[in-house]
Amino acid sequence: MSYPHSVKNLIAEFSKLPGIGPRTAARFAFNLLRRSENDLKLLGNAILDLKKKTRICKNCFNISENELCEFCSNPKRDRGVICIVEEAMNIPAIENTKQFNGLYHILGGVIRPNEGIGPNDLNIKGLLQRIKNGKINEIIIATNPNTEGETTALYLVKILKPLNLKITRLARGLATGSDLEYADEMTISSALAGRREYR
Amino acid sequence: MSYPHSVKNLIAEFSKLPGIGPRTAARFAFNLLRRSENDLKLLGNAILDLKKKTRICKNCFNISENELCEFCSNPKRDRGVICIVEEAMNIPAIENTKQFNGLYHILGGVIRPNEGIGPNDLNIKGLLQRIKNGKINEIIIATNPNTEGETTALYLVKILKPLNLKITRLARGLATGSDLEYADEMTISSALAGRREYR
Repeated sequence: MSYPHSVKNLIAEFSKLPGIGPRTAARFAFNLLRRSENDLKLLGNAILDLKKKTRICKNCFNISENELCEFCSNPKRDRGVICIVEEAMNIPAIENTKQFNGLYHILGGVIRPNEGIGPNDLNIKGLLQRIKNGKINEIIIATNPNTEGETTALYLVKILKPLNLKITRLARGLATGSDLEYADEMTISSALAGRREYR
Repeated sequence: MSYPHSVKNLIAEFSKLPGIGPRTAARFAFNLLRRSENDLKLLGNAILDLKKKTRICKNCFNISENELCEFCSNPKRDRGVICIVEEAMNIPAIENTKQFNGLYHILGGVIRPNEGIGPNDLNIKGLLQRIKNGKINEIIIATNPNTEGETTALYLVKILKPLNLKITRLARGLATGSDLEYADEMTISSALAGRREYR
């Protein structure tokens, strides 16, 4: 079975998206085949235009339409606290809590020795520069709670510790609404180690 | 949190793909932000070009680069057997078995009363025309084994029966490699009803 070239080509391109195999890619392609020419233009042009109006915030490496992103350019945000995240797309999760009013720093990934990604591939120089230039009271490390995220967090702690800063890490423990019965050992261990006293 | 306009726009467009919510759409967008301008062009243009070189086979409604699709134009295929499928993307599953050498007919969907999709919205007229024009020995109904697929199959049987054709349906039963313990009642009922005698 050979699909027409333009269909095969689109399936190959869709398959490059994260988590998309050839079957889902084919489903996307056939969905688009049923849609109007105008619909295809909307999606196609959205992709072609993606990078034209966006750039990287020169302070925190967030994506932005201006030299400084919406957080770095906002005078109401607390410049003394920096929350370090792996990717810009981690920011909404933190913003949605409405509990954080500092600035961010986007690492642009995590240390992955297997894939040859080391500290020099992350936006760490810029972070050190920010710490040097500004009065930072606290650095919150919010990398993901998995092996790579932890490795990266430990590396960051190692290089930031000598700078005499308050360095914190998002708490590990039971997720709200989860079930003790189904929680994994690591999570319960973290919940035990981080237990808090009722006062 | 407001992403730059071009990012938000792309997330909205990706969210229109089947099974894609705003989070996965955002993951796609951020994946593309990390890729090269050239990569974006490949995907964007593949979408814009999708319909330019494809059309619908005038015989079976498959997607095609020519007036007739690769099956309808292939002299080695048996013109006396038509396998009716819901969508062109169901064809590879049947072709991969290498057990079918007839032609196809693509319905272009199934009857969905809730969504106002009736028989007139499917490519049924063209099917009746094909049956009228050619010597058809057998019609194999290969709609999906779910409620809509079954409803559509029953409708097809009703209108095809008076034409004195052999009409068959793909067998229902236990999937190869599946486990009796986990099979649902309907599947086991079908397997019982369709049981075959050892000879």
